[in-house]
Amino acid sequence: MTNQLVSNGRPGGKRAGLPQALIGDDLEHVERILQRTIAPYRSQFGALVKHLNHYRGKRLRPTLLLLIAHACGRATPAHHVLAAVVEMIHTATLVHDDVLDEADTRRHVRTMNAGWGNKTSILFGDLLFTNAFHLSSTIGDARACEWIGAATNRVCAGELQQTTERGNLNLGVDRYFAIIEDKTAALTECCGRLGAFFAGADPEMVERLAEFGRHLGIAFQIADDVLDLVGSEQTAGKTLGTDLAQRKLTLPLIYLLERISPAEAGAFRRLLGRPNSKFGELHDALGETGALAAAQLCAEDFAQRAHEALKDLPATAHRAMLESICAWAVRRDA
Amino acid sequence: MTNQLVSNGRPGGKRAGLPQALIGDDLEHVERILQRTIAPYRSQFGALVKHLNHYRGKRLRPTLLLLIAHACGRATPAHHVLAAVVEMIHTATLVHDDVLDEADTRRHVRTMNAGWGNKTSILFGDLLFTNAFHLSSTIGDARACEWIGAATNRVCAGELQQTTERGNLNLGVDRYFAIIEDKTAALTECCGRLGAFFAGADPEMVERLAEFGRHLGIAFQIADDVLDLVGSEQTAGKTLGTDLAQRKLTLPLIYLLERISPAEAGAFRRLLGRPNSKFGELHDALGETGALAAAQLCAEDFAQRAHEALKDLPATAHRAMLESICAWAVRRDA
Repeated sequence: MTNQLVSNGRPGGKRAGLPQALIGDDLEHVERILQRTIAPYRSQFGALVKHLNHYRGKRLRPTLLLLIAHACGRATPAHHVLAAVVEMIHTATLVHDDVLDEADTRRHVRTMNAGWGNKTSILFGDLLFTNAFHLSSTIGDARACEWIGAATNRVCAGELQQTTERGNLNLGVDRYFAIIEDKTAALTECCGRLGAFFAGADPEMVERLAEFGRHLGIAFQIADDVLDLVGSEQTAGKTLGTDLAQRKLTLPLIYLLERISPAEAGAFRRLLGRPNSKFGELHDALGETGALAAAQLCAEDFAQRAHEALKDLPATAHRAMLESICAWAVRRDA
Repeated sequence: MTNQLVSNGRPGGKRAGLPQALIGDDLEHVERILQRTIAPYRSQFGALVKHLNHYRGKRLRPTLLLLIAHACGRATPAHHVLAAVVEMIHTATLVHDDVLDEADTRRHVRTMNAGWGNKTSILFGDLLFTNAFHLSSTIGDARACEWIGAATNRVCAGELQQTTERGNLNLGVDRYFAIIEDKTAALTECCGRLGAFFAGADPEMVERLAEFGRHLGIAFQIADDVLDLVGSEQTAGKTLGTDLAQRKLTLPLIYLLERISPAEAGAFRRLLGRPNSKFGELHDALGETGALAAAQLCAEDFAQRAHEALKDLPATAHRAMLESICAWAVRRDA
């Protein structure tokens, strides 16, 4: 295990940006494709399209896809298109996620559904989904459509599972992992596969880099769930403790309920089940029992596995940047 | 103009099923593909998948695609897959449409969102969309993905336009047509194109059958909008006058507002703008001014154009069935 990934399970840490040097030109290319794809909607839905800027995130998925392409030898025009596709799919899920979560803010601005209503948000999310699929077909290789389709099936099934499990205060570790592997890791796995395959990597390397994406996605999601419980609204830029408010059990809470007595667990479950509960005691218990730290260590373990999946790549600056993303995924606070 | 399409603009008529003889085996094949595609979700989302049966409609889009394939010479396994794809896309839009419309019933049963809430309906609709796209990629020809993607872009953009225009009581004829060409005709046009292309039709015939689908879709939608205003809850199987309740201007209403004095039009616009209005007087005016009949004649005109687009096909039983669908599209009441 490399030093940079070891933290003794203390969540949080210094704010750091996603490492994206080396692929600045590629990312600009991706932006142009994204802009060109939504351009036809500007005249009809100008305000909605403009609002989309607020959903602009760190471009994690395009970054992974492009760095992997370079690390395997080359980034082609097909990679730029596919990087735009995965970003659009991610944005579509964010738009629909806001409808689901009845969240009031995302990245410090009103969500689309708060501004325009559920109906518009659903249809605009649909439009992003369908444009992403259409865009994926333009590279002329049905395998890209198939992999992207399969990954997106899993993303949606994972989100649906999460929604149907909401309020299940007996959710176990296995089920938690099944959900996050679908809703988050399926798309990062797809980024690994697309990046490597369209750079001409051999089938074994393609699968190894798909695994890199999968493990990184799992690490990222667990870290995100830890952050949801420890972060503050200011640093995370979104409504604090959304998961608790929605009675969504995540890894730190599952660990906590395993570590305390049945009576204590029962008390916390009753607290979680009541509306307008105060969670101060629960937050304390997450720290005191080591549940939060254990979840953070689990995230770091997956980040380490992702790191190891890179070991057969040639030693390039792009590989080094992918390695630093493994560390970033579990130590970010923004 | 054939006799069967002439009606002197009197909407309504005898209940008739969609002509589907000759392609019973093909449609069974399509059902098996649909069942196989959603099978993986039965264990997790059994009740939701089961509820999907209530969205089972007349299979208009698969029927068009398959009849066109046969009329062009042959229906292949690719056609069966693509027929399942267009049906899944249509079902996905119905599921999301129910969320939008806050409709309480569809085909005499509770809508999915009434039973499971908006969140589940949105994600389940997403899952149908993504599975449709994934399925389209399995025939291994990116052109199918491209055409289906482009059509679905238009379907969603049309739905979004319709939503943003809701409450616009000055909607004109041009805008109405732009909306229905996207939200309804883009997919039936795609059925024509896919059916003909994958049967090996020459490019000119492919375009002519795409045009058949487009005109049929327009005819079908106008007839549907007429039906929304004249139908009863019993025969239409869905909440009556949904469009009026949602302040959605459709062709009969646009024609009415053009045919009466500015003062009368102003009075109707105020009536339409008020919550809980009674529409008895408006219904009477739709009949008395001939606005409803004019809209019905317009539907029949497009059905006729669709009929004419079939003229260069060989005279087969499949072509005859497509012709009878042109008549059915504007004379159904179920």
